[in-house]
Amino acid sequence: MISIENIGKDIERWLSELDYSREPKNLYEPVGYSMSLGGKRLRPTLCLAACALFRDDYEDAKWCALAIEVFHNFTLLHDDVMDKAGIRRGKPTVVAKYGINAAILSGDAMLIESYRLLGMTDSPSFALVDETFNKVAAEVCEGQQLDMDFETRTDVTTDEYLEMIRLKTAVLIAGALKMGALIGGATAADIEALYEYGILIGLAFQIQDDLLDTFGDEETFGKAIGGDIMTNKKTYLLISALERGDTQQRRDLAQWMSLKDPIREEKIAGVRALFEQTGARKATEEKIEQLFSQAMSKLREMEIPAEGKRAFIDNAQKLFKRKK
Amino acid sequence: MISIENIGKDIERWLSELDYSREPKNLYEPVGYSMSLGGKRLRPTLCLAACALFRDDYEDAKWCALAIEVFHNFTLLHDDVMDKAGIRRGKPTVVAKYGINAAILSGDAMLIESYRLLGMTDSPSFALVDETFNKVAAEVCEGQQLDMDFETRTDVTTDEYLEMIRLKTAVLIAGALKMGALIGGATAADIEALYEYGILIGLAFQIQDDLLDTFGDEETFGKAIGGDIMTNKKTYLLISALERGDTQQRRDLAQWMSLKDPIREEKIAGVRALFEQTGARKATEEKIEQLFSQAMSKLREMEIPAEGKRAFIDNAQKLFKRKK
Repeated sequence: MISIENIGKDIERWLSELDYSREPKNLYEPVGYSMSLGGKRLRPTLCLAACALFRDDYEDAKWCALAIEVFHNFTLLHDDVMDKAGIRRGKPTVVAKYGINAAILSGDAMLIESYRLLGMTDSPSFALVDETFNKVAAEVCEGQQLDMDFETRTDVTTDEYLEMIRLKTAVLIAGALKMGALIGGATAADIEALYEYGILIGLAFQIQDDLLDTFGDEETFGKAIGGDIMTNKKTYLLISALERGDTQQRRDLAQWMSLKDPIREEKIAGVRALFEQTGARKATEEKIEQLFSQAMSKLREMEIPAEGKRAFIDNAQKLFKRKK
Repeated sequence: MISIENIGKDIERWLSELDYSREPKNLYEPVGYSMSLGGKRLRPTLCLAACALFRDDYEDAKWCALAIEVFHNFTLLHDDVMDKAGIRRGKPTVVAKYGINAAILSGDAMLIESYRLLGMTDSPSFALVDETFNKVAAEVCEGQQLDMDFETRTDVTTDEYLEMIRLKTAVLIAGALKMGALIGGATAADIEALYEYGILIGLAFQIQDDLLDTFGDEETFGKAIGGDIMTNKKTYLLISALERGDTQQRRDLAQWMSLKDPIREEKIAGVRALFEQTGARKATEEKIEQLFSQAMSKLREMEIPAEGKRAFIDNAQKLFKRKK
C-alpha cells in the first residue's frame, strides 16, 4: 500500500534535488528560499496519490507533481508582493527579504521553472496534462484578481465568494488530482469524479481555514486568531453575516469595519459575537460539512476497487484534517 | 515567395483574433492593452519566416509565433514594473495605466497565456520546441536580472555586457528562429546555424539600439536622444569608454555620472564628446559591423538552396534595417 508518509518523503527528496544554487544568484536564491519555506506539499501529494490509484507506482507523475508545487509557491510569492505580506510560514516573505523587483522576477522564473518541470513528464497523456495545467494556472490568476476586486466591493455574495475560492484555491487541488489521474491512466469518468472531489474538498478546506482564522484555537491553529476580522477580509463568515443579519446587525458590522483604529480584542470579540448572532458561524460550519460530504460522495462514485478507494479516502482525510 | 509583408499581415490578423475581452476584466483588459501597444512583431515574423524556409508555408508555426509574441510582451510588461517606466511606444505602460498589482498579475496571466498558445502547436517536434521555449524563457529572466545587477556595479566589462544582452535580448530572437525551423523540419545543422545567426543579429540589434539612443537622429529614431546618458545606463558605449579612456577621461566620465542635477544638453554633449575621444563610438560601430557580418556568414552556412537563402537574407535585412 502506498502511504502518504512515503509520498511525502519522496516529494521532499525530489524537491531537495532541484538545484537553485545557480547564477545569477540574485535570481535563483529567492527561488530556492521560496521553495525552502516548506508547507504541507498538499498538491503534489494529491497528484501522486491520484496517479497511484490507477497503477502500481507514482514515479511517472513525479515531474508533474514537482511542477505543481513550484507553481503553487510561485503564486504565494507573487500574492505576497501584491498583498505586501511580510511573513509567511513564520519567516520573512521573499518580497520582505529580497525586495519587490527580485520577488517579481524570481516569481516569473519560478512560473517558467514549473513549466520546465512539467515538460519533463513522459506520458502518453502529456497533451491533456499540459492543457489542464494551462487552464488551472490561468484560473488561479483569475481567482486572485477576483479576490483583489472584492477588497473594494461591499456587495459580494456567498456565491461570488465560492466562485472566487474555487478559482483561487480549489482548481489547483482538483487539477493536481486530475493530472495525476491522467498520468495514471484513469478512465474519463474517474478523472471527472476526482476533479469534482478536488473542487469540493478545496472549497471546504478554504472555508474551514476562514473559520479557524476567526474561531480556531491560537495554539493549535499556529497563527494569531482574528487576522481576517482586523483586515475586514471578505470571508464566507463575513459575507454570510452581512447576508443574514437584520438591519441593526448589519449596521453594527459596518460600524466595526469602519473604525479607523479599533482596539484589537474589542473588535474581534464584537465581530465574533455578530457572527454568532446572525447565524453566520452556524451557516459556515454547515457549508463546510455539506462540502465535505459531497466530496466524499464523489470519491465513492469512482469505478476503482473498493480497497483502493478506501485507502485513498483515508489518506485524503489525513491530509485534510485540520486543527480545530 | 513568402514576403515579410504577408507574414506581418497574418500576424496582426491572428493577434486580433486572440480575445482578451473576457472576465475578470481587471485581469484581461491590461493583457489586451499590452498586446495592442504594437511594435514590429519582429520575433513572430522571424519564427514564421524560419519555418517557411523549410516547407511551403508557415501555418504550423502559427501558435508558436503567437506564444513568442505574447511572451515578449509579458517581459516588457514586467520590465516596466521593475523599471517604474511610465511610457512605452508613446503610450502609458500597463503599470502606469492600471497600477502595480494589476501589472504583476496580468503579466503572470500573459506568461501562462503564452504557454497555452505554445501548447496549441501540432508538430512532431513539439517536445523540442517546448524545451527550447522553456530554456529561452528562463534565460530572458536571467538577462533581466544581470541588467538589474549591473545598475549597482561600476566594474562591468564589455564581455559581461555582451553576455547580459545575449540573455536578455538575443536568445529570444534566436529561439524564435530555432522554434520556427524545428516546426519547419530543418536539419540539426540548419537549426544550429539559424540559432547562431539569431544570437549574432540580436546582439548587433541591441548594440545598435544603444548607439542610436546616443548618436541617432531624434526625428527618425522616434524618441529623445540621450536617455541612456542621462540615466548612466551601462551600455556598450559607456562600458567601452570606461575600458578605453585614460585616467583623465575616466575621471571626466565619472564626474558627469555623479552630477546630481545636470543640465540635460550639457551632460549629453559632454558624454558624447568623451565617447568620441575615447574611441568608444568607433569601437561600438565596429562591433556592430563585425556582428552583422558574422551573422550573415552563419546564414550562408545553411544547407538550403541559394534562392531561399537569398530571400531570407533580404527579408532579415529589411527587418533589421534601423533608422540612423
